Amino acid sequence: MSRRTTIRTLLILSLSGFLGGAASFWTMGRGSPVAAASAGAIQDGPAVKGWQKGKGWGWIWGKDDEVGALNGLTDQSRAAALKLGTRGEVFDLGLTYSRRSYKWPGHSPGEIITFRSPDGIRRMQDPDAPPPEKNGDQVFWHSAALFISDNVATQIDGLAHITAGADDHWYNGFKESDWGGDWGPRKCDAPSIPPIVARGVLIDVAAFKKVDALPGHTVITTQDLQDTLAWEGVAIQPGDVVLVRTGTGRFWGEDGADHKTIADHDSAGPDLAATRWLVEDQGALMVGSDTSGYEVNPPPGNPATGFPTHRYLLVDQGVHIGEFHNLEGLSTARAYVFCYVATVNKIKGAAAGFALRPLAIR
Amino acid sequence: MSRRTTIRTLLILSLSGFLGGAASFWTMGRGSPVAAASAGAIQDGPAVKGWQKGKGWGWIWGKDDEVGALNGLTDQSRAAALKLGTRGEVFDLGLTYSRRSYKWPGHSPGEIITFRSPDGIRRMQDPDAPPPEKNGDQVFWHSAALFISDNVATQIDGLAHITAGADDHWYNGFKESDWGGDWGPRKCDAPSIPPIVARGVLIDVAAFKKVDALPGHTVITTQDLQDTLAWEGVAIQPGDVVLVRTGTGRFWGEDGADHKTIADHDSAGPDLAATRWLVEDQGALMVGSDTSGYEVNPPPGNPATGFPTHRYLLVDQGVHIGEFHNLEGLSTARAYVFCYVATVNKIKGAAAGFALRPLAIR
Amino acid sequence: MSRRTTIRTLLILSLSGFLGGAASFWTMGRGSPVAAASAGAIQDGPAVKGWQKGKGWGWIWGKDDEVGALNGLTDQSRAAALKLGTRGEVFDLGLTYSRRSYKWPGHSPGEIITFRSPDGIRRMQDPDAPPPEKNGDQVFWHSAALFISDNVATQIDGLAHITAGADDHWYNGFKESDWGGDWGPRKCDAPSIPPIVARGVLIDVAAFKKVDALPGHTVITTQDLQDTLAWEGVAIQPGDVVLVRTGTGRFWGEDGADHKTIADHDSAGPDLAATRWLVEDQGALMVGSDTSGYEVNPPPGNPATGFPTHRYLLVDQGVHIGEFHNLEGLSTARAYVFCYVATVNKIKGAAAGFALRPLAIR
Amino acid sequence: MSRRTTIRTLLILSLSGFLGGAASFWTMGRGSPVAAASAGAIQDGPAVKGWQKGKGWGWIWGKDDEVGALNGLTDQSRAAALKLGTRGEVFDLGLTYSRRSYKWPGHSPGEIITFRSPDGIRRMQDPDAPPPEKNGDQVFWHSAALFISDNVATQIDGLAHITAGADDHWYNGFKESDWGGDWGPRKCDAPSIPPIVARGVLIDVAAFKKVDALPGHTVITTQDLQDTLAWEGVAIQPGDVVLVRTGTGRFWGEDGADHKTIADHDSAGPDLAATRWLVEDQGALMVGSDTSGYEVNPPPGNPATGFPTHRYLLVDQGVHIGEFHNLEGLSTARAYVFCYVATVNKIKGAAAGFALRPLAIR
Repeated sequence: MSRRTTIRTLLILSLSGFLGGAASFWTMGRGSPVAAASAGAIQDGPAVKGWQKGKGWGWIWGKDDEVGALNGLTDQSRAAALKLGTRGEVFDLGLTYSRRSYKWPGHSPGEIITFRSPDGIRRMQDPDAPPPEKNGDQVFWHSAALFISDNVATQIDGLAHITAGADDHWYNGFKESDWGGDWGPRKCDAPSIPPIVARGVLIDVAAFKKVDALPGHTVITTQDLQDTLAWEGVAIQPGDVVLVRTGTGRFWGEDGADHKTIADHDSAGPDLAATRWLVEDQGALMVGSDTSGYEVNPPPGNPATGFPTHRYLLVDQGVHIGEFHNLEGLSTARAYVFCYVATVNKIKGAAAGFALRPLAIR
Repeated sequence: MSRRTTIRTLLILSLSGFLGGAASFWTMGRGSPVAAASAGAIQDGPAVKGWQKGKGWGWIWGKDDEVGALNGLTDQSRAAALKLGTRGEVFDLGLTYSRRSYKWPGHSPGEIITFRSPDGIRRMQDPDAPPPEKNGDQVFWHSAALFISDNVATQIDGLAHITAGADDHWYNGFKESDWGGDWGPRKCDAPSIPPIVARGVLIDVAAFKKVDALPGHTVITTQDLQDTLAWEGVAIQPGDVVLVRTGTGRFWGEDGADHKTIADHDSAGPDLAATRWLVEDQGALMVGSDTSGYEVNPPPGNPATGFPTHRYLLVDQGVHIGEFHNLEGLSTARAYVFCYVATVNKIKGAAAGFALRPLAIR
Repeated sequence: MSRRTTIRTLLILSLSGFLGGAASFWTMGRGSPVAAASAGAIQDGPAVKGWQKGKGWGWIWGKDDEVGALNGLTDQSRAAALKLGTRGEVFDLGLTYSRRSYKWPGHSPGEIITFRSPDGIRRMQDPDAPPPEKNGDQVFWHSAALFISDNVATQIDGLAHITAGADDHWYNGFKESDWGGDWGPRKCDAPSIPPIVARGVLIDVAAFKKVDALPGHTVITTQDLQDTLAWEGVAIQPGDVVLVRTGTGRFWGEDGADHKTIADHDSAGPDLAATRWLVEDQGALMVGSDTSGYEVNPPPGNPATGFPTHRYLLVDQGVHIGEFHNLEGLSTARAYVFCYVATVNKIKGAAAGFALRPLAIR
Repeated sequence: MSRRTTIRTLLILSLSGFLGGAASFWTMGRGSPVAAASAGAIQDGPAVKGWQKGKGWGWIWGKDDEVGALNGLTDQSRAAALKLGTRGEVFDLGLTYSRRSYKWPGHSPGEIITFRSPDGIRRMQDPDAPPPEKNGDQVFWHSAALFISDNVATQIDGLAHITAGADDHWYNGFKESDWGGDWGPRKCDAPSIPPIVARGVLIDVAAFKKVDALPGHTVITTQDLQDTLAWEGVAIQPGDVVLVRTGTGRFWGEDGADHKTIADHDSAGPDLAATRWLVEDQGALMVGSDTSGYEVNPPPGNPATGFPTHRYLLVDQGVHIGEFHNLEGLSTARAYVFCYVATVNKIKGAAAGFALRPLAIR
């Protein structure tokens, strides 16, 4: 792994208008690299824009910011991550969605339905189709209409997904009374999630524990994460996307139809303390796992919410959460360090990216 | 641009089960590189798996194949493409979708609707929400339900999108009577489109012609493509993703609400001859543009179909089509060569990837 | 017309639980008729439960009431109305809905899509279908999935449709902060609209004015209504459903696809003053017309809302509004008095009945 | 019960264009009643248009007919039925639908979602809403978007619902290859079901058997029907709508959320022999029950289809089927004879009427 030593803490982000503008150029800060002299001060890895050890990220990017910790991405960090792709091996981290797929019961069901078919167009003498005299070759088409939730299959939760407090605020203090709406949240929706190109690390807890998958409700502790990393011989660097494997994804199969088996394992995950260690001590830019909700359920202790880790990550830290990532291929290949590339659907009002295919490249 | 000289025509693909299997490891052929000795024979670029000059691609990958020309992707080709990302600059090629977005009238409309909101959960005393005694912090959530077409905003057409003939067959001879269904085509749907990591080339015809955008119905000819490439100083290499810019995308703005202006330009595009030159002479692995349909409309001549180029690419050649790619940032930056990375929604039965964000990285 | 002389103002409604209970017996008040002695006091028609001349209806039915003026329906009023059906002639007042149908632009679009078809079931080897060995006769089925607005084609607006004031209250003071929700209003939704069986009167303004249809934006005044009734030789009785014909419905044709022509006339309708006359002076139990919104648009004067008549009827008076009723057959047959029978979809959370077929029987 | 003795077998139906025409006047045959002299020949009830004892109905109405047995409705039959409503008592036979409602697993799920709300309109500064300066009273509105199946809650199956044979034909020989389509069947869809106003009879088998509800899979035989009718003291007349009560509807409650209990009883129903007796011997114009599918499941014997009674009624006889009718109120009131009034949603392409409220009036 080549060492990245660039510091870019002085860069000023210019995010104004990035959501709607036709020019969606995500390269922020194109100036010359800041002198690397001071890099030596940080012993456990290169510095990363915005992150502070012991504190993490937070509401530090200006009052209009919708991006959160992903502002830490820079040309330099991306270039360094891309260099990890020397072999050209690509792992598809997406799980296939269908009407049968397991999902959290609180989300809406889904159907993918043929909207136009060659048969239908011909039978209906479809007025939108070319007339027969201009279509001697009988060229027709398939398209589908979907009714679908924005929280299914492989997801990245947007920063508006979770709200807290009597004022229902989310990341950066956006409030429901100002920025809610009938058609999804109007701040921090899916289009606000920039393309993610970063160093990725897999913490394969299930493999370390020599189980196919962790039992349901297993709390993954800080110690578990540390032990697994040591066993893998891998160190997290600030700015990394950190993926934790419980093994639940192995039961997804073709399209997640075996609800019972998935549900039996889906509740394992890191607790708040382990997640804080990842973010505040190790500098995770984003975290994720192979379950529907990342965090262990029920949460240990008696937190004043059922989702303390979601609230911590999304609301307080501005750290996006990856869910239902398919980590089986990485585990089999013992691919613990890679370039993580993910983009979410660019759909206004969606609270999350869904049915995604993040990539791990090495 | 570093020269890629590897030939891998001898590799055997093992695609069996790639669609549904939990291990979605897209690295095909991990053997040692074939001797590069014969590479010198091809003067105008490195060889690429499966492609033949003067012929293109086609139904050459075995009778069960659903992948088409993208089978030409190899570890080596991906590794070479990733090396283009030295600066770490990322261009987001996605256009934002909303209920207002322009689309081809033949597709279904779309709505993104708040399914759960903090207000709603509280007011409804939602039984799926945590009870108040376990939720002192009032942590709630947003999620949305979508009714959406699989052919909107930034798309990659799957190989089942277009059918031809009285038997309604698509790529590789899959027929409606065998592989159609109520819930989308059952061969060559979106999950069958592998992650695309390839060298990308922009042919900025609008910039070459010094116009904001080509007028509607403008035929982009082979000569136009050649002249623009010469003006750019860029050569296509076999295996490239080739994107042609008409300028239509500049009118998308926030979310494609200005239907009239978009429609005024949306019909410009390459004709069949120009597209054949790209595929058969230049070795394009995939083609795309910044319009809703890539090909010029109406097609010149009197073809026996209204969509001769769609039919040629998707049915006959097995070449995927990128549509409504946002090429404005690339044009402004004069970024003509880059690493193209795209993944489509992993949704069974979808005929295309939609509301995507392909990336151009340099 | 036989004279109805029964007064039932003393009856106590027992509506508790009518929404969810399995026994949905809408006969309210089965006791012996109240003495008719005082009926003579009202010269211009029989008395009707709850209505007061000069005042209309209003929030008089108890704080939990969701039914409004339709509480005025009694066994006696229904029995009297049914006696109008001596000929057994039935007029279908519904307009056919399809994806092409005209609608107010503020509502969501609609698609009716084949969800299961004989072809699809067979091709997909559908696991929900009977296995071939038990289905030698190849018996399959059609069903459709709909994405549809609750405000399309022939409608009856529920009392939660319109809200007013900073507290967003609707009929009877139900407030959004208490009774709103993510899944439709939770008071006065469609299931709360009881079956309507009442004397109906058509006021055929277009026929009286000798036009195919009133021009757009035509204000129908009290005088217009009075003149038309005199021309018809018909008198309204308290408790009647009053339908006003503009002629707009004649342009609906097969399924309302001629948006332009419909829109050219759709804005004609009664103003607030004419509507008040119907309700407060004449005792209309419900009003309706053959346009998308009943009331004239724009409203005359400078009301502090764009929909003063909707607000008056739904919020203040608790009077339901019938929209897009097909009155063409009644007009042709000069059927001005009839038994009106309408039931709305029993769908929780729907704000209106939609795609209905009210009947006029004589 | 007054005896109806009219014969109208000579009437010629003129149904041409009834589906799309603006004039939807369902009174067929307005001539003077045919002489009643020959009526005496039929001992067990009045004659009814089209029906033949021992044969039932069938494909007798002409090759374009989409209406089936309901063509038997005439002004006279409706007028006679309406005379049963002397008390003005109305029983609402609809069951309330919500996202939680029990349904046959083969149909698509449903969601009713707030599309516009006062909060949302205000927060979004909704461009379709009136501007604040014209809306001092803050008048806003609720509307909902629905994703819903055409086969839920209280239904009337259309004649295109069931197909049979290798050619997938339905009633009157309409074939899938001619009249199928992507947007529902194009013959015999919901708009083709005329308003139903007919004498109705309840056969309360559960009450006769002194059970709350028949156990699952109970076969209701011809003898059961005859015994129950004798116990009730009621005789069916040709042209009647016959409703059979199993008691399953009593478990629907608020909105059919108790799937298990409903499923435990939902499979009871008449078998094919009992249904043939109703149609061929007794002259039932339409049959129905309080279960999701009317007929007993599994069917006795070894029929060459899982739905022999559906196929018999819909395909062969052209007799519509009422499902999930709420018969609890009728049972409690011992109301065995009444005027049945039902209209289905007028939605093109819908294979059934759904979430209906048929009425029983006496």
